[in-house]
Amino acid sequence: MSVTAAKGFTAAGIAAGIKDSGNPDLALVVNNGPRLAAAGVFTSNRVKAAPVLWSEQVVKGGRISAVVLNSGGANACTGPKGFQDAHATAEKAAEVLEGHSAGEIAIASTGLIGITLPMDKLLPGIEKAAGELSEHGGEKAAIAIKTTDTVHKTAVAGGDGWTVGGMAKGAGMLAPGLATMLVVLTTDADVDADVLDTALRDATRQTFDRVDSDGCMSTNDTVLLLASGASQVTPGYDEFAAAVRTVCDDLARQLIGDAEGASKDIRIEVVNAATEDDAVEVGRSIARNNLLKCAIHGEDPNWGRVLSAIGTTRAAFEPDELNVAINGIWVCRNGSVGDDRDLVDMRYREVRITADLAAGSESAVIWANDLTADYVHENSAYSS
Amino acid sequence: MSVTAAKGFTAAGIAAGIKDSGNPDLALVVNNGPRLAAAGVFTSNRVKAAPVLWSEQVVKGGRISAVVLNSGGANACTGPKGFQDAHATAEKAAEVLEGHSAGEIAIASTGLIGITLPMDKLLPGIEKAAGELSEHGGEKAAIAIKTTDTVHKTAVAGGDGWTVGGMAKGAGMLAPGLATMLVVLTTDADVDADVLDTALRDATRQTFDRVDSDGCMSTNDTVLLLASGASQVTPGYDEFAAAVRTVCDDLARQLIGDAEGASKDIRIEVVNAATEDDAVEVGRSIARNNLLKCAIHGEDPNWGRVLSAIGTTRAAFEPDELNVAINGIWVCRNGSVGDDRDLVDMRYREVRITADLAAGSESAVIWANDLTADYVHENSAYSS
Repeated sequence: MSVTAAKGFTAAGIAAGIKDSGNPDLALVVNNGPRLAAAGVFTSNRVKAAPVLWSEQVVKGGRISAVVLNSGGANACTGPKGFQDAHATAEKAAEVLEGHSAGEIAIASTGLIGITLPMDKLLPGIEKAAGELSEHGGEKAAIAIKTTDTVHKTAVAGGDGWTVGGMAKGAGMLAPGLATMLVVLTTDADVDADVLDTALRDATRQTFDRVDSDGCMSTNDTVLLLASGASQVTPGYDEFAAAVRTVCDDLARQLIGDAEGASKDIRIEVVNAATEDDAVEVGRSIARNNLLKCAIHGEDPNWGRVLSAIGTTRAAFEPDELNVAINGIWVCRNGSVGDDRDLVDMRYREVRITADLAAGSESAVIWANDLTADYVHENSAYSS
Repeated sequence: MSVTAAKGFTAAGIAAGIKDSGNPDLALVVNNGPRLAAAGVFTSNRVKAAPVLWSEQVVKGGRISAVVLNSGGANACTGPKGFQDAHATAEKAAEVLEGHSAGEIAIASTGLIGITLPMDKLLPGIEKAAGELSEHGGEKAAIAIKTTDTVHKTAVAGGDGWTVGGMAKGAGMLAPGLATMLVVLTTDADVDADVLDTALRDATRQTFDRVDSDGCMSTNDTVLLLASGASQVTPGYDEFAAAVRTVCDDLARQLIGDAEGASKDIRIEVVNAATEDDAVEVGRSIARNNLLKCAIHGEDPNWGRVLSAIGTTRAAFEPDELNVAINGIWVCRNGSVGDDRDLVDMRYREVRITADLAAGSESAVIWANDLTADYVHENSAYSS
């Protein structure tokens, strides 16, 4: 599974000593070809970590031969030294891996913001990881990128003779424009960088970009898609894009399920919107409403807070035509009291909110989490 | 103090039985003239409560002779019946108060959303309140509009021979575009409705609109300013506007200080912005960042989360020129590590964040609260 499910890739995950805990903190993913096509999507936060600035440049060439990922430090807000460190990391990987060029090696980091990485541990770690590269190393790589994640996250999909696999890290700061989220996807399909780019942007727009755990957009979000061409199969675009989207969707759902301190996963479906943009705007507004997130935590089907959130958007709707269902019960009809709220069963982790704008035929799904005392505790103690 | 500090006004606050607890829940404020000038500012939420829809119409005429306010029910998302109830409330007040017209009586409600008001209790309550109207009734009126407020909120300012006084209710759902916030201001200055409107909009823009306790905008926010002309003094505009702003600022600060479940009041000052709009946008983004709000609760001077919030805005800035101070210590300089974060003393309730955009000379102050387990508890149990 993970990034070594597709042929042509090797990976490793090791403990380099970046984390004081001694847990795995360095992952290496290598594309052994024959093709080295790649695409990437990065945080839209204007305060970007050094590895993001580095990898954005690498991806522009359409080729990535290897990815070095570390947990235990985000290398964000670290000034010129941070960028030098990202560069030195790529140089070291190029040196250790035969026949690689630093300009084709992507870097991704996650962890505390505002502290520089311990390069005296990271650089030897790359050498150690290179020595452990394996076609079965995907799981270990996925484990090495965890921070507050309780589980490592992998997914796989594919077609006749070809595969798309991936790993993700993320458990908080999840918001549109991506998240404190590192994702590496690999495929052995024989496709070029342009196809990868189109398929990846299409998939992230409808998956990772619609995950909004806590409204906080990070400085480090990175999603990379690497193709080795090792299957020698070139699938049709639609089939390939669907597989990429399936893997992204699966990983995005796992991120929400592992969000820091959450007790509920909230699936917000906005239907009958005039445009898809309207549906997304309304979904995000609902997803970010702290009062509603608290109510869901308390298993209170508080549709008034849903309406209040819808009312802050610019979407097309009439207040007295809005309908809201919670777990299938239409508790709000025509902007007013609907079916008996006592019929709503909210005991399970997944809560479904349906907001009917009665303004068209477009729809979108946004995933969010509830707001809990555990979230407050985790994030008032963890300095990131 | 409160709404009866200015000459020409009487008020009352009584228990009408709208609240099951038996606490005061109905307030009446009457302008006895000679002038009946008025202005109002309402929630920008597109889902507006019935009393907001009613009072917006009343204010258009530039005259308000009385205001009926109730706690214990927001009369929001209540359909045509809700609007009929608001209308009936005004009719009843006009009938009870001699020489008044329903079209000049404003209504304001706060409490649970999605349930209709108990008119069999509210209407007799208006009669009872009218019987208790007094020039000293301002405090009782301020007490009767409380919901989860722990204290009632009043303020006063003025000039030579004239006064501006006011009361406010609000303890959560506070966000730009106003809040679950009812405010009635009165003045005995002899000024017309246009002056009141200009002064009120100017004041709310820089006070209530810059209070962002939890990012949630309500359906019921109402700020009214009534002038009786009873002082027979017409102050200069600047002096009058300054007094209105002083009272609004005082009340806004009290709202933040009493926000549900908060343990810190956060004063966010954005300086050296290219425009005032940039400063406000950045301030709001910082104010709404849940991860930062948790960090402040944990007394963690986590400037990385401030930078991350700034990075999501469209404001003019360069990431490597940003500076951030927390309680006077410049923990971030030039987008990277600054002075020692251990120097930051965060023991006190008020926390000051200064964000220097290094892009101009404009500034703005936004007030927010921290995010606490108590906030989660209060809002997962309280169905509103």
